[in-house]
Amino acid sequence: MAVRVAVDALGGDRAPDEIVAGALDVASPEIQPVLFGPADLDTHGLEHVVTIDAVEMDDKPAEAVRGKPDSSLVRSARAVGDGVADAVVSAGNTGAMLAASLLHVRRLPGVLRPAIGVVLPTRVGASVLLDAGANADARPEHLVQFAHMGSVFAAEMLESAEPTVRLLSIGEEAEKGNQLTLEAHRLLLGEPGLRFEGNTEGRTLLEGDTDVVVTDGFTGNVALKTLEGTIASVLGALRCEIEGSTRGKIGGALIRPATRTLRSRLDPETHGGAYLLGLRGIVVISHGSSSRRAVANAIRLAARGVEHDVVGRLAARLPQRTPSTS
Amino acid sequence: MAVRVAVDALGGDRAPDEIVAGALDVASPEIQPVLFGPADLDTHGLEHVVTIDAVEMDDKPAEAVRGKPDSSLVRSARAVGDGVADAVVSAGNTGAMLAASLLHVRRLPGVLRPAIGVVLPTRVGASVLLDAGANADARPEHLVQFAHMGSVFAAEMLESAEPTVRLLSIGEEAEKGNQLTLEAHRLLLGEPGLRFEGNTEGRTLLEGDTDVVVTDGFTGNVALKTLEGTIASVLGALRCEIEGSTRGKIGGALIRPATRTLRSRLDPETHGGAYLLGLRGIVVISHGSSSRRAVANAIRLAARGVEHDVVGRLAARLPQRTPSTS
Repeated sequence: MAVRVAVDALGGDRAPDEIVAGALDVASPEIQPVLFGPADLDTHGLEHVVTIDAVEMDDKPAEAVRGKPDSSLVRSARAVGDGVADAVVSAGNTGAMLAASLLHVRRLPGVLRPAIGVVLPTRVGASVLLDAGANADARPEHLVQFAHMGSVFAAEMLESAEPTVRLLSIGEEAEKGNQLTLEAHRLLLGEPGLRFEGNTEGRTLLEGDTDVVVTDGFTGNVALKTLEGTIASVLGALRCEIEGSTRGKIGGALIRPATRTLRSRLDPETHGGAYLLGLRGIVVISHGSSSRRAVANAIRLAARGVEHDVVGRLAARLPQRTPSTS
Repeated sequence: MAVRVAVDALGGDRAPDEIVAGALDVASPEIQPVLFGPADLDTHGLEHVVTIDAVEMDDKPAEAVRGKPDSSLVRSARAVGDGVADAVVSAGNTGAMLAASLLHVRRLPGVLRPAIGVVLPTRVGASVLLDAGANADARPEHLVQFAHMGSVFAAEMLESAEPTVRLLSIGEEAEKGNQLTLEAHRLLLGEPGLRFEGNTEGRTLLEGDTDVVVTDGFTGNVALKTLEGTIASVLGALRCEIEGSTRGKIGGALIRPATRTLRSRLDPETHGGAYLLGLRGIVVISHGSSSRRAVANAIRLAARGVEHDVVGRLAARLPQRTPSTS
């Protein structure tokens, strides 16, 4: 049976054209995108649920979800909660998608806070970093749950047989960190069912020293944006330097296949989106700037989560592991 | 009169050879390095203060400072406190240097917490990010002081006439952030004497959108290491891709001048070190891996701080600006 993925056709800066195009690219007997958008949307034959409002990028999340219940974003999230779709993808307002998902998809039993898990393209494969921004403030016990959620994600989606976990901090030693990470480190050491290998630092995020990088949503979001921004700045600066001379231009043409491979590997669009983990359904949030390629990859990522039963595996693992200090 | 810079000859992974070499490179009628190290150190004629112990990289800061008062690190910091030197440079144990400086150089009146200021090589010049790791936990009023200290540093050292200040957060909007940044944002808006322009994000750190980036020491340290690690990973991956084919190798040779310029601009060694701001003297902390070039640049950076009277300007600005909620 095909996996049905609800797609918010109005989410993102390049909606609806790139969203519809991405959905068309992945439509197959295995993956069936369902587009949520206005009546006049040309879906090129894809299944269409007509919605009558749009959440804007600068709408306040709670107000958007309350005030625009028939928007494409809210309705596509609700489709998962109602069992009409197996997963949902949106490149729209992240906060609103988070709020809509909490309301309509709802948390798994025992989950204190959902977390945003992002795949990092490392030198040796892929890691998952979480929380990349669902909760700006976190408590140590939240980070322990993130470690479990990340381990399930890495095992199912990144094919890491026994995923290793590290805590993002400011030194590898256990005594380096802030109040939050010092306490989380202590809890993680005593937590059964995890392969916790201590702290890691920002400098190794692309080196793939671990399968799961655990952090609070503020730090994770800053680290992720610093990483993405630095990749873009370095590749942009390289292009400027190369184009500054004839010799450089010729050299640049010769290395183009190499830089293309590198750009593709490091491009956030290659993975297409971030997972909202800890809910009763699969929710994938894409960059606001998502192109058709990013949207297609996000839908594939969502479908793969359904096939691997990520939600079922999280449900099986989390309740008994919920720290008593919730 | 020459600026006298105390140099910890035993600090860093490549001590003492690279430290002595770097000091020799900058010795001039204007800059007079004073080497702190063991009796058998060959200083090639530079002034030498004999010390009898060494702080190791993994020594606990407080214990090192208490237990090794005659180490090169502690004695070089004390030289500034005692007025024997105008500034100090160490590539040794950062925590120990921070502790030794707090004890022997001491805070300026009114300073709640010193901060580590690091120069970021941006597309359009340079910014200063602080705190890059002196305080893992910070309160909102600390961040307000960091904004003032960073503004003085940018005005004197980066020649920004009226430095702009931004707060590192997870969105540009005032309502995006964690408890710490939300409250700091509010305080910064009401603070006289600052050109506060709102939040910034990790993705713009190398774009130079602002002269001063304010953050707590945990977030700042994670962001800085993520930035440095990502630069190294991207340039390393590029080299691998290029060397994977003959065509790439030829192209790589042609673009070498361009990549060399870029590497040099982005290399932390170009600035040589981080400033410990908020003390009664100039303290520069270098990377543990510092080469002779990094050491030379760090000594120049320290001497420039003396010439620009950074300490005097901080002293003139901070007391009256100390928030009452200290």
